[in-house]
Amino acid sequence: MNSAMAGVIGFVGLDQLSLELAALLLRAGYKVQAFEVQNLLVNEFLKLGGIECSSLREAAKGVSALIVLISHKDQIHDVIFGHDGALEGLQKDAVIILYSTILPSHIRTLEKNLKENGLATSVVDTYVYKATSENLNGKVVVVSSGMPDAISKAYPILSAMSEKLYIFEGEIGVGSKIKLVTELLEGIHLIAAVEAISLGVKAGIHPWIIYDIISNAAGNSWVFKNFIPQLLSGNVKYHFLNSFIQKLGIVLDMAKLLTFPLPLLASAHQQLVLGSSLGTGDDNTPLGQVWDQVFGVNTTDAANAERYSPEELATQITSQSKAVRKVGFIGLGAMGFGMATHLVKSNFCVLGYDVYKPTLTRFESAGGLIRSSPADISKGNLRTL
Amino acid sequence: MNSAMAGVIGFVGLDQLSLELAALLLRAGYKVQAFEVQNLLVNEFLKLGGIECSSLREAAKGVSALIVLISHKDQIHDVIFGHDGALEGLQKDAVIILYSTILPSHIRTLEKNLKENGLATSVVDTYVYKATSENLNGKVVVVSSGMPDAISKAYPILSAMSEKLYIFEGEIGVGSKIKLVTELLEGIHLIAAVEAISLGVKAGIHPWIIYDIISNAAGNSWVFKNFIPQLLSGNVKYHFLNSFIQKLGIVLDMAKLLTFPLPLLASAHQQLVLGSSLGTGDDNTPLGQVWDQVFGVNTTDAANAERYSPEELATQITSQSKAVRKVGFIGLGAMGFGMATHLVKSNFCVLGYDVYKPTLTRFESAGGLIRSSPADISKGNLRTL
Repeated sequence: MNSAMAGVIGFVGLDQLSLELAALLLRAGYKVQAFEVQNLLVNEFLKLGGIECSSLREAAKGVSALIVLISHKDQIHDVIFGHDGALEGLQKDAVIILYSTILPSHIRTLEKNLKENGLATSVVDTYVYKATSENLNGKVVVVSSGMPDAISKAYPILSAMSEKLYIFEGEIGVGSKIKLVTELLEGIHLIAAVEAISLGVKAGIHPWIIYDIISNAAGNSWVFKNFIPQLLSGNVKYHFLNSFIQKLGIVLDMAKLLTFPLPLLASAHQQLVLGSSLGTGDDNTPLGQVWDQVFGVNTTDAANAERYSPEELATQITSQSKAVRKVGFIGLGAMGFGMATHLVKSNFCVLGYDVYKPTLTRFESAGGLIRSSPADISKGNLRTL
Repeated sequence: MNSAMAGVIGFVGLDQLSLELAALLLRAGYKVQAFEVQNLLVNEFLKLGGIECSSLREAAKGVSALIVLISHKDQIHDVIFGHDGALEGLQKDAVIILYSTILPSHIRTLEKNLKENGLATSVVDTYVYKATSENLNGKVVVVSSGMPDAISKAYPILSAMSEKLYIFEGEIGVGSKIKLVTELLEGIHLIAAVEAISLGVKAGIHPWIIYDIISNAAGNSWVFKNFIPQLLSGNVKYHFLNSFIQKLGIVLDMAKLLTFPLPLLASAHQQLVLGSSLGTGDDNTPLGQVWDQVFGVNTTDAANAERYSPEELATQITSQSKAVRKVGFIGLGAMGFGMATHLVKSNFCVLGYDVYKPTLTRFESAGGLIRSSPADISKGNLRTL
């Protein structure tokens, strides 16, 4: 299919996920063009084969669909209706695909404003995400909703840019509603994960060991599994809080309009605000330090500790599992050393750490592999067990 | 290995998971015996090859390890030190393996009491669970801790009754601490799941569709994925709340002893108490009805609704995935019908539901498979997508 047949798609704003949408659309034969101010994202977009536009109007010109990634309602209004805005470039029969965290009521206002301007242009709202389940792992899922005419126009594009597609026909805002419900869960799970890890550290347990055990137990969540390693290794920064607070504020706003109580989300939101209030002024402070201040613990040091109390030995044995032949030992006390060397003799690959260096030397000469910190052991297990 | 060599293991109290431990121990050549009052569990235990005991003393007699499943500290004290209690039957070198939700401080008291009674008997505490991750799915994991002599005695038994084993040597209570941290997460995730589904229903979205989308997105948790279907189908009953409230109370107690704040768990705990306060006096009331009362929605009816508003059509298309050939449509409006029949022609297996019966007849004659409710479609997809 050549691009003239498939048509042109415009992007207003880009993020990592919209780059994937662009790649899927290009593969389906669409031409894609974008207006975005961040150079890093624009460069990736150009590498894919996209075309950079110098204005909103230009990005909207000649497209059959305009994919808008802007969350603030006033900004969306300006982007579309403002001077040199998208509407000035838009064809009368184009469809606007919203890909943002935005209140359903604001989407309906936008739809109404378009109609009042005498425009046939119709709107579809979407929730776009990467699937997390075993079967669909990493595939792009699009949940979309809109009036029948809008769905009808958007369908070929939605279909091309997704690997699994849900369509709610007959009412706009359903995509956004489901996105807001998911974000409610993400927000609560984030604060729950931080509360849990901090409690564990306060109780004297190494955070990587808590992570290793719980990410495989009934206490697990997608956020726990994916966020905690980022937090413990210092990769998440303070500024992450503010975008989260904003998103959850929109969920609370939606519930308020529905006169619906969200006591647990409200509590999680307040914890995020508390975290945010403890900022040092540096947006790039590792987020773990903020939570350490909230809870009065030192998760950061515990996660990176070279030193480990021999009284808090942790050993981990894998038995009766034919598939697993790699075992980590944290602490090589009398029992631990005996078991570890026994496993070495049984042809296991055994990683060990102990604060007492001569023990490590002895362990190495018995055939064990030594590691420089408990975190290294735990991480090793995560990859292999 | 014959049972005389491997030894005898006693159980005080049984549950589904301890039946699995018993099966693993039997397979390793141990003889197992139990004292339990519930006939159903005893019968399953006997079927495995276990021996029923008529008293605590008898269950403890001749064992190398006594596995105790009792959560209340006073009960544990009575079980061990009471008249005709376990201690009267216990050999001096036996080890007690605690398999309960119990405060670390109570475990230390128990250990002290045993020592003060001049007994060599030592204690190991454990957190036992079925692994939830892809690699270890369903395997029995044991997280254990205790002083070196206790670990040394318990090691062969712990090793035989687990498929993955963690040992924390040098301090008792670590197993329980990790269990309490997991339960904190489970409790919060439970209330979060209920809050999310109720908000979605209030916003007009079918609960099975919310479940289908979110259980595959970043908002997912183990509790959401496994608990919500039970809740929506009415399988979880009111009495479930009280055991949860008790367990989370122990987590809050542990945090209090550590002077550690748990604002989010405290909020979740209060919601559980609110739910509990709305009981009708019938322990077997479906739990969903309790939450419906809390949130002023009707999730129960929505989940089972035969009728579905045609204005809230939901269609689901799977595109570009070669593996998936089964698609469900809820609502067969103008667009939905066209897409559904198009997919039928492309050799997809297409399930459809619509409130308007003539549409269904038309759909069936076009080669679609009709279903009697939206829930049937969603459930069908869960199994196949």
